[in-house]
Amino acid sequence: MSCWAGPRHWSGERQAGKLDAGQFCGILPLPQLEPPICPPVLPVGLPQIRIFPAVFPYFRVLPSMMPSLFCSLVLRSPRPKMKGDCQGWGEHFTPLGPGHPHCLAFPSSSASLLLDMGEMPPITLSTSTHLHHRWVLFEEKLEVAAGRWSAPHVPTLALPSLQKLRSLLAEGLVLLDCPAQSLLELVGSTHPRKASDNEEAPLREQYQNPLRQKLPPGAEAGTVLAGELGFLAQPLGAFVRLRDPVVLGSLTEVSLPSRFFCLLLGPPMLGKGYHEMGRAAAVLLSDPQFQWSVRRASNLHDLLAALDAFLEEVTVLPRGRWDPTARIPPPKCLPSQHKRLPSQQREIRGPSGPRLTSAEDRHRHGLHAPSQELQRTGRLFGGLIQDVRRKAPWYPSDFLDALHLQCFSAVLYIYLATVTNAITFGGLLGDATDGAQGVLESFLGTAVAGAAFCLMAGQPLTILSSTGPVLVFERLLFSFSRDYSLDYLPFRLWVGIWVATFCLVLVATEASVLVRYFTRFTEEGFCALISLIFIYDAVGKMLNLTHTYPIQKPGSSTYGCLCQYPGPGGNDSQWIRTRPKDRDDIDLGLINASLLPPPECTQQGGQPRGPGCHTVPDIAFFSLLLFLTSFFFAMALKCVKTSRFFPSVVRKGLSDFSSVLAILLGCGLDAFLGLATPKLMVPREFKPTLPGRGWLVSPFGTNPWWWSVAAALPALLLSILIFMDQQITAVILNRVEYRLQKGAGFHLDLFCVAVLMLLTSVLGLPWYVSATVISLAHMDSLRRESRACAPGELPNFLGIREQRLTGLVVFILTGASIFLAPVLKFIPMPVLYGIFLYMGVAALSSIQFTKRVKLLLMPAKHQPDLLLLRHVPLTRVHLFTAIQLVCLGLLWIIKSTPAAIIFPLMLLGLVGVRKALERVFSPQELLWLDELMPEEERSIPEKGLEPEHSFSGSDSEDSELMYQPKAPEINISVN
Amino acid sequence: MSCWAGPRHWSGERQAGKLDAGQFCGILPLPQLEPPICPPVLPVGLPQIRIFPAVFPYFRVLPSMMPSLFCSLVLRSPRPKMKGDCQGWGEHFTPLGPGHPHCLAFPSSSASLLLDMGEMPPITLSTSTHLHHRWVLFEEKLEVAAGRWSAPHVPTLALPSLQKLRSLLAEGLVLLDCPAQSLLELVGSTHPRKASDNEEAPLREQYQNPLRQKLPPGAEAGTVLAGELGFLAQPLGAFVRLRDPVVLGSLTEVSLPSRFFCLLLGPPMLGKGYHEMGRAAAVLLSDPQFQWSVRRASNLHDLLAALDAFLEEVTVLPRGRWDPTARIPPPKCLPSQHKRLPSQQREIRGPSGPRLTSAEDRHRHGLHAPSQELQRTGRLFGGLIQDVRRKAPWYPSDFLDALHLQCFSAVLYIYLATVTNAITFGGLLGDATDGAQGVLESFLGTAVAGAAFCLMAGQPLTILSSTGPVLVFERLLFSFSRDYSLDYLPFRLWVGIWVATFCLVLVATEASVLVRYFTRFTEEGFCALISLIFIYDAVGKMLNLTHTYPIQKPGSSTYGCLCQYPGPGGNDSQWIRTRPKDRDDIDLGLINASLLPPPECTQQGGQPRGPGCHTVPDIAFFSLLLFLTSFFFAMALKCVKTSRFFPSVVRKGLSDFSSVLAILLGCGLDAFLGLATPKLMVPREFKPTLPGRGWLVSPFGTNPWWWSVAAALPALLLSILIFMDQQITAVILNRVEYRLQKGAGFHLDLFCVAVLMLLTSVLGLPWYVSATVISLAHMDSLRRESRACAPGELPNFLGIREQRLTGLVVFILTGASIFLAPVLKFIPMPVLYGIFLYMGVAALSSIQFTKRVKLLLMPAKHQPDLLLLRHVPLTRVHLFTAIQLVCLGLLWIIKSTPAAIIFPLMLLGLVGVRKALERVFSPQELLWLDELMPEEERSIPEKGLEPEHSFSGSDSEDSELMYQPKAPEINISVN
Repeated sequence: MSCWAGPRHWSGERQAGKLDAGQFCGILPLPQLEPPICPPVLPVGLPQIRIFPAVFPYFRVLPSMMPSLFCSLVLRSPRPKMKGDCQGWGEHFTPLGPGHPHCLAFPSSSASLLLDMGEMPPITLSTSTHLHHRWVLFEEKLEVAAGRWSAPHVPTLALPSLQKLRSLLAEGLVLLDCPAQSLLELVGSTHPRKASDNEEAPLREQYQNPLRQKLPPGAEAGTVLAGELGFLAQPLGAFVRLRDPVVLGSLTEVSLPSRFFCLLLGPPMLGKGYHEMGRAAAVLLSDPQFQWSVRRASNLHDLLAALDAFLEEVTVLPRGRWDPTARIPPPKCLPSQHKRLPSQQREIRGPSGPRLTSAEDRHRHGLHAPSQELQRTGRLFGGLIQDVRRKAPWYPSDFLDALHLQCFSAVLYIYLATVTNAITFGGLLGDATDGAQGVLESFLGTAVAGAAFCLMAGQPLTILSSTGPVLVFERLLFSFSRDYSLDYLPFRLWVGIWVATFCLVLVATEASVLVRYFTRFTEEGFCALISLIFIYDAVGKMLNLTHTYPIQKPGSSTYGCLCQYPGPGGNDSQWIRTRPKDRDDIDLGLINASLLPPPECTQQGGQPRGPGCHTVPDIAFFSLLLFLTSFFFAMALKCVKTSRFFPSVVRKGLSDFSSVLAILLGCGLDAFLGLATPKLMVPREFKPTLPGRGWLVSPFGTNPWWWSVAAALPALLLSILIFMDQQITAVILNRVEYRLQKGAGFHLDLFCVAVLMLLTSVLGLPWYVSATVISLAHMDSLRRESRACAPGELPNFLGIREQRLTGLVVFILTGASIFLAPVLKFIPMPVLYGIFLYMGVAALSSIQFTKRVKLLLMPAKHQPDLLLLRHVPLTRVHLFTAIQLVCLGLLWIIKSTPAAIIFPLMLLGLVGVRKALERVFSPQELLWLDELMPEEERSIPEKGLEPEHSFSGSDSEDSELMYQPKAPEINISVN
Repeated sequence: MSCWAGPRHWSGERQAGKLDAGQFCGILPLPQLEPPICPPVLPVGLPQIRIFPAVFPYFRVLPSMMPSLFCSLVLRSPRPKMKGDCQGWGEHFTPLGPGHPHCLAFPSSSASLLLDMGEMPPITLSTSTHLHHRWVLFEEKLEVAAGRWSAPHVPTLALPSLQKLRSLLAEGLVLLDCPAQSLLELVGSTHPRKASDNEEAPLREQYQNPLRQKLPPGAEAGTVLAGELGFLAQPLGAFVRLRDPVVLGSLTEVSLPSRFFCLLLGPPMLGKGYHEMGRAAAVLLSDPQFQWSVRRASNLHDLLAALDAFLEEVTVLPRGRWDPTARIPPPKCLPSQHKRLPSQQREIRGPSGPRLTSAEDRHRHGLHAPSQELQRTGRLFGGLIQDVRRKAPWYPSDFLDALHLQCFSAVLYIYLATVTNAITFGGLLGDATDGAQGVLESFLGTAVAGAAFCLMAGQPLTILSSTGPVLVFERLLFSFSRDYSLDYLPFRLWVGIWVATFCLVLVATEASVLVRYFTRFTEEGFCALISLIFIYDAVGKMLNLTHTYPIQKPGSSTYGCLCQYPGPGGNDSQWIRTRPKDRDDIDLGLINASLLPPPECTQQGGQPRGPGCHTVPDIAFFSLLLFLTSFFFAMALKCVKTSRFFPSVVRKGLSDFSSVLAILLGCGLDAFLGLATPKLMVPREFKPTLPGRGWLVSPFGTNPWWWSVAAALPALLLSILIFMDQQITAVILNRVEYRLQKGAGFHLDLFCVAVLMLLTSVLGLPWYVSATVISLAHMDSLRRESRACAPGELPNFLGIREQRLTGLVVFILTGASIFLAPVLKFIPMPVLYGIFLYMGVAALSSIQFTKRVKLLLMPAKHQPDLLLLRHVPLTRVHLFTAIQLVCLGLLWIIKSTPAAIIFPLMLLGLVGVRKALERVFSPQELLWLDELMPEEERSIPEKGLEPEHSFSGSDSEDSELMYQPKAPEINISVN
């Protein structure tokens, strides 16, 4: 800061129409100015104006006249996708040649103003000025007193400042395609620069700036300088477009090349006129459309036309209903720039837009034509072959893509869920089949089938598991075979063989294309049912614990417990019982007693007596506490991601590991108090649960041979169930909202399920299909979100980490759990039930159906501004929800009654109900409430639905919103 | 709908320059048009244009050309406060007289356009048109497909539509002060109207419209009609200001008089041009500033100037960063219209602005001059006399204002809190004083002192109670008197007499004006300490229960319990003990045993033996569950108020009764399971706890006389404590944010406390001062909020229901609780501890200090946009918070150690610390972080603080925000 040139009198330097910039010296030592390289086509006598752009930021005329420095960042598409797009915007210019600087004249009215500067008063200089605002995507204001950047907000301008800027530029200096290579060159000095500390220090700061990491590689800066000069008689504006972007020293916060340079100067005026004009210029430069136009501009007229085009499109907020100083937080989704670009540009840019992934593309056209995976080839196994062909190229990346810490969390989470599921369903299966299958079979089957599926399947994110509907069916099958005195496992083997056959037929005939008829209505009904089963099971198993460990009420007489020894001569009969007979079990008479706890008592040769010996107190309530704690803790940790606390890394970690942390907390609480809560018990021996059978089921056993044919009938029903269960889950997992890149494999998945069906039937293991809830939790734990984003921009959901490794590891661990018993035995069951509840609630709250059920409870004026509510009358929305609720209730009832055997048909019935709804609701309503079924697509044009459907109707009010994928409405996560 | 006139050819009717409106017939039968009453000063040959305003809304030219009807409501100040303001805006006009209609000419360019209508095609008519938008305060859009009004949002306009509107009006017809008395007159028909069904039906609807109830009495409507007419060659605009507002039939949704009438017509054009222009006109009319100008306008020029002034003030959002179709939810606070009005208008309107209450006024000027209550009179007892004078006029209303259902909830809530508090502190006092005082004294004292205070005090919202600091002091006093073998109660009586004397001296010398030195720093330190004591006590008492009801761990050998009878010949000695000696208490030998529960055992003459007999299982965890349930339930119910579910009445009810409902839920759970949880026990007999003493304490007892003089020393310390405790609470309760209307009474309050101090000392009851947490809860339960608000407007916090009745009833009930024991015994103590925790958390989270502590955990970019963060560097904010935390920690440590006797001095020390902070922080920083202490105020101008302080500085960025009271930052409630 020692480079101060003392204040000199302006008039003394004014010779031959040249200005010495030394008197404006700031950080940069600018000894003197030579004629610039870029000779402006100016009237004679006006070369001095060129020096201002570089000199301006370093001086301050009076304390009240703050010069302001604005910087707006020009974000270029970081990923060139087309050949023609490699050079960014630059390519669309007509190159004028390096020797042809394209500098424009400006009218003489403003030219004369600097000729009157002879009487300039002595001015006080200060060393540097602050960057007052910055625009990366949104505006950030430097809060000078607080010394920090404000929260990013939508830039708001005052209309007069834009108009003043326009008139200033219309009369000002406009230099286009100026070939200056550096700030000094722009200023006009040709002397080699000396590296000074003053210059290096800010540059080092620039490199350390955390903003740097957030910027994409192709980012450019634009610089706007505005301020007041006491000696000016008239305002003066200059706009420079450099031919090549140049790093303008320490002007910008981060060392970035600048292409645009804007200078606004004028005599002192009331208020913050130049400051606001500077902001207006920066907002203009940060507007993609304006940028695009200005890059193409060849003269002043083009520049003003771009400004007018900007004005045509602005949104105006009236002063009476909006406080202009309020800061608008960044919107969740920005308007699509795609629509705004002029047509010729759109042609070039369109297909390479960074956001237009294949999934979105699929979505945009998906309603009209079935996606590629679901097109019928017409050949036997044609779909299967296509699936294999589509997935094979991804196979290596399916393993490489798993190398991320997030996958570790996912493995832990899903492993625990899978093991709990295996134990739960193993126990239930053991009950249902009288021990023909058990926990060990459940573990083994889960591990084998799951791992095989993850290796071979079309959608490796799917987690295979025993599911509620299949369990219900197996229970019915077992009671049937018991009623007919059949040997269960051989009979089951034949059912499995038939099911596998039927499924292979379905694969061969490409029946999976029928999943196009599974609209959101069907999916939501099924998903809600499965989620409710999860919740019901979790709560039910928890409440069961209170039966195992009853609560001791004051009157329940479960107090007494003593240890009775067969003492010397201790004989009950020698005592006369004087108590009434009904107290027989309570009065013991004369005994040799001790107060040892029951286990020690037995050890010492005694016998525990009394009702209190068999009850374990405190367990019931403690289990309930553990259950609630793990559930609420997992929910709360999930929400940490969107909270304001902690750095984002910590938040993301806490959120990703929410269920694992909740389990650890539960285990810690349990270990701290050391109560005898029921723990996770995994089998330790590797042998079939049913004594006396080998691992291979004999094909006939004691059954007559014709039962193997008769098994085809139940197998038909089971095939329907397997098909529905498998494919609805597959449809849910392959929704476009999840932005899967590697495509689905409906045929391949069904093929794998059929093969595994055969295998598990032969080995006497449980049957497996895709488990909706766990698979959704799996995907949720593998969400990818964009990281390097501009301040204020919300992280984008990029897709799912699609790979096979997490699933594979989960199932290998599940298999190995038989040897992990010593570790797993510390996990209390109530904690796992809490996690089950969490999974069920998460899956249930992720469907639109739940949102609509909530609408039933909301008064109309408090309802969120959902798109469907803008287009469908509320009563119709409620009617649709009510129909879904009734269907769900019917499914639940059928599942719970002996009629459960027709449950598979009822799932098919959902599709029928959906079809019947077309008589109740108009196609427009169904479009908003559901999706359209394939048939309607062909008839849309006749019904006049097309205009709204193709998003080009006259009611353009929310056409912008419709451009966004419907993802925000349906989401995997709970938050 | 039978009034259709068939389509006729326009050309056939075109004679003598007149148009028959019959062909536009809609709902209103308009047989034919006569020359209008208001003869426009028009060029010859153009009378036909007058008919359009009334005819337009009823026709539709083509399906694609939707005419739009807009309605904007002009809300007038419903409460005229000044004489000059009674007539609303109308009075400021220069009346032109009824015979002088002030209708303006319009240029002939647009006049000629209707002369070419001869070739008009046959047009199809429809009966009515929809109201498409409405503006009550914010915009609501009719969602035609969904058939409902959208959520209210800030109106956004496109700039071009405003510009087009301007040019249309500039060339159009402007009629000002048209004396038409009805729609028909406006149209020009002089025939008496026939009442038809078509007219009456919508009027009935209008009366049933729920919007009607929301509108203030003086509301007016403005009507804007816009549409396309195929035969027009050029657009046409008309703007009519009626001299008197007229109900325009069924044009408006609610039957309201309209003053402004705007018509926009033109040839078909692409897009929604006229629709957007119509919206722009309606937004203009709903802008208060524009309205004001247009009401004064005397010619076209004034109208256009008003439009230009509107444009000058609009906020502009760039298209690239803001989606123009997005709807901005209504902001929490609207910009102050006060500032926008021109100066001459502000003079008239200023003092009568509806929102400018005395509290705000106090706030705005409060920082400069001490409020009236704290001004020193300079006379003995001058402050007390002023307090009585100020409060006396309010005395009747202090009882009448309590007639509201909300007070019932407040009584229940505060009653339960008071009783719990009385029991808690009664028990603690009994421990501390070895039974010299007990629960009965606590009940009696609370009832007597509280009721007396509520009847006499200056701030009757205060709830008197035993407080932690006083309890700590009393414990020290008792151990002192025990150490010196003093008779405690007589000694305490003298302490009380001295304290009362000191306090009276403080009242006489108007020492309460010193509370001006209690800035936010002191208040927050004290309030946080008291809240933490609440939380600590609640959790501590809860955990104490686990000692009373221990958890039975597996190894803890608390299983055994049996009932031993003194059986015939049953003699322990006859058995040889073979067990090891350390098992002596466990091995019982030969006994006559039974397994009866302990109470029955004792009843039968037996003796319960064994460790398990004295433990009650399950109570500890169940108590914890009850504790957590009531806490979280109360918290959740409190949040229901701001949730989207349920109608607002239900939400308000649930929120107001949150603690009562939480207690009921806890009682229900407890009763359902029927466990022997500890219940609320209130004393049943009315006699002093210390046996053998009467209700009056003897003045000397066994103490030497000089102890009555020596008691002055501890009394001095206690006086400081009482003064601090009482006055800090009083300052907190009388904050300007709570908008109390009836003023405070610091001197009167202290006088009451002194008198009650004397009374309780004489009777040997506990000492009472204001309890911060319960008083805040009391005020919170009495919040008044505005009800009749426009859609989208948030309810305003209007103040507190200031009255004496709730407190009085609470204390009468507390006194009566001695007789309510049979009912109260069903309330489990853990539930009450949960409510205690809730109160502590609510009080703690209501102070700004907590917000700043949270900031410590937030990364800078996620911090909320608090005003103080805009003006104070983050490190300084953190430093201030850290100093507060250290002070709080010191206070806590001193409170907990034997040094607690100097605790009162430490509270005074807080004021000193705050004073010392002036050396660390600049006045500007302290202004934002705290308030200024009285001394600084005088020195502000020298320090250059004034500009920012008086909100008129050059940095006007958030001057608008500073106009709002700081209330949002500090609030009583938790939500």
